[in-house]
Amino acid sequence: MSRLVKGLRSFSSTASSLLADTTATTSARQPKSFLVFRDVPQLRQLRRKLLQNERTVGFVPTMGALHEGHLSLIREAARENTDIFVSIYVNPTQFGVNEDLSSYPRTWDSDVEKLEKINDELARVQAEGSGPATGRITAIFAPTSKVMYPTLPPSSEIDGQGSFVTITPLSTKLEGGSRPVFFRGVATVCMKLFNATTPDRVYFGQKDVQQTVIIKRMVQDFHIGTEVRVISTSRESDGLALSSRNVYLGDRRRAVGLTIYRALKAAEESYLAGKTSRADILGAARAITEQVLSQQNALSPSERALFEVDYISLADPETLEELDVVEPTRGGVLSAALKMAPLEETNAGENCGLGDGKVAVRLIDNMILQPRC
Amino acid sequence: MSRLVKGLRSFSSTASSLLADTTATTSARQPKSFLVFRDVPQLRQLRRKLLQNERTVGFVPTMGALHEGHLSLIREAARENTDIFVSIYVNPTQFGVNEDLSSYPRTWDSDVEKLEKINDELARVQAEGSGPATGRITAIFAPTSKVMYPTLPPSSEIDGQGSFVTITPLSTKLEGGSRPVFFRGVATVCMKLFNATTPDRVYFGQKDVQQTVIIKRMVQDFHIGTEVRVISTSRESDGLALSSRNVYLGDRRRAVGLTIYRALKAAEESYLAGKTSRADILGAARAITEQVLSQQNALSPSERALFEVDYISLADPETLEELDVVEPTRGGVLSAALKMAPLEETNAGENCGLGDGKVAVRLIDNMILQPRC
Repeated sequence: MSRLVKGLRSFSSTASSLLADTTATTSARQPKSFLVFRDVPQLRQLRRKLLQNERTVGFVPTMGALHEGHLSLIREAARENTDIFVSIYVNPTQFGVNEDLSSYPRTWDSDVEKLEKINDELARVQAEGSGPATGRITAIFAPTSKVMYPTLPPSSEIDGQGSFVTITPLSTKLEGGSRPVFFRGVATVCMKLFNATTPDRVYFGQKDVQQTVIIKRMVQDFHIGTEVRVISTSRESDGLALSSRNVYLGDRRRAVGLTIYRALKAAEESYLAGKTSRADILGAARAITEQVLSQQNALSPSERALFEVDYISLADPETLEELDVVEPTRGGVLSAALKMAPLEETNAGENCGLGDGKVAVRLIDNMILQPRC
Repeated sequence: MSRLVKGLRSFSSTASSLLADTTATTSARQPKSFLVFRDVPQLRQLRRKLLQNERTVGFVPTMGALHEGHLSLIREAARENTDIFVSIYVNPTQFGVNEDLSSYPRTWDSDVEKLEKINDELARVQAEGSGPATGRITAIFAPTSKVMYPTLPPSSEIDGQGSFVTITPLSTKLEGGSRPVFFRGVATVCMKLFNATTPDRVYFGQKDVQQTVIIKRMVQDFHIGTEVRVISTSRESDGLALSSRNVYLGDRRRAVGLTIYRALKAAEESYLAGKTSRADILGAARAITEQVLSQQNALSPSERALFEVDYISLADPETLEELDVVEPTRGGVLSAALKMAPLEETNAGENCGLGDGKVAVRLIDNMILQPRC
């Protein structure tokens, strides 16, 4: 804590002088309160100076399309570090060959605007003395794919060539079942990003629970000198987990998509009510999905939104092995993936979301069953 | 350079105080001039202090069984850094299921003795002013396998589970042809070791040329903040490359084993004489191996030492793709592996090496064909 305070006291003088002589390549929209780095050497130079000045770095890796969930990670990073690095990079190796890499939202200008706003907010909170001392976003790392994959082109093929980190069997479970290259891509790009930024702490959202388990495992197994912080899932007021992909839903699929939250909530309630068996806990979730699906099937194609349940899982919090019974001292992870099909028929004036309801949208969500004692 | 000098000037005062309050677990033989670390946290604590004191760390990863080749890496590290970390760890994941993990020499006491002697030598050279200012060995990292593989047991199976770094297609070539898990194990353990030690520079011997190419690729692809330094192969006076495995040869196989050096030397001479085609260059090497083999075959089982040529390769220095013609501006890598068979019959009083000549010994060697212009 003393280090944090010391770092913060000298924020205005030190940060600006550190940044002043660090050359950074800037991009389309020119931010004011932080630098944008497109390559590693200058970022590393800044990082080294921060280290020598006993400042601490919290790192928030993103694929852009920033929403309130990302901002909550940044706020948490600001509470625990003097400096925040945010990366914006849509990593091709974690998208399967037939997945939505090309349609993944890319929103640079609005992302930068959101990051500047949150820096303003952090400064205001500190100036007003209305909150604890906080760090600021110092650097955005927005590399090109040639920087991230400097030798061979990034491959999404299962047998693709390249330099990869694999974490098995964790990466084959849950999401890995339908997305075989996903966690190889995630672990690989995170290893690169962690090495480029060498953060004291790195921030991930609870929403991607398998990602958090795999990154924690990677940090442990490879002795990466960073602390992994997992922040609660940000949700809409009705419970829908925030996701960059939600913009593709539109009103009708958004309403039905809430089923994933309701199903998990029902399962969680069953555990909180004292149930421990897989049949009881997941049965509560399945009752919800089946009820909604039969209601939707009874509607006409212009009224309904159909979906498929990819999985509903009850798994061990560290190994992600499926559980028959939750050990109350150990707890578990409830998680689900649900694929909203494209709308069959749309109506004039209907808000069908980005892509006019033609893009299938895969929703994931999870809840942690906390140990009881 | 100024940083190095600054660091060295304060060696006696700083190093001892840095080390004084760093708790390290010690092992069988208690060294005097450096600390032995068996786990990562205390090593990381020391590393952080060194960084804050603007000292530099050169890292020499070894599997123990230290010989003059390792010492030459340490001397080079001493020229370029204030502090040297040496790791001693026989990494199980790089030995195939049927390879010589159990028979790999483990010589802790004599290793520690050699490291103490070289620290004395480095101090003497500096005190006498007979050489440039040099760093010292500050820390030995000798982890257990539970430290290096903290979650799942280290697997040598091709489809084994665990957290791995894979570098393809480089790792499938040359040595990778007959040792399919070898470079996965090497890359994985080096990633762990680099993260545990975060060296400014890391030192490898030219002898394991494919290892140097793969580690350089790994450092580049994963943005590891260390410089890879490759040091010329140390050789006996007749040219045999030093190797921890040479102790298994004995006199007869050692004499015949020199063939690998002679063959590569003949190929190199052919390139230096202006040849560029694979047929010419490798033909010169093959002429040697075939001549020696036919001589040996003509001898009786108690006189001869038979061998198999695993490969003789002429490859691109970065991709390790086999070359039909050496591009003179790019050069190439000549490399070979030769497997000395167990002796068929031994003679009374004969020096047959550790294991009495019963252990097959695989020898590797290489030469770099430097670009001509």
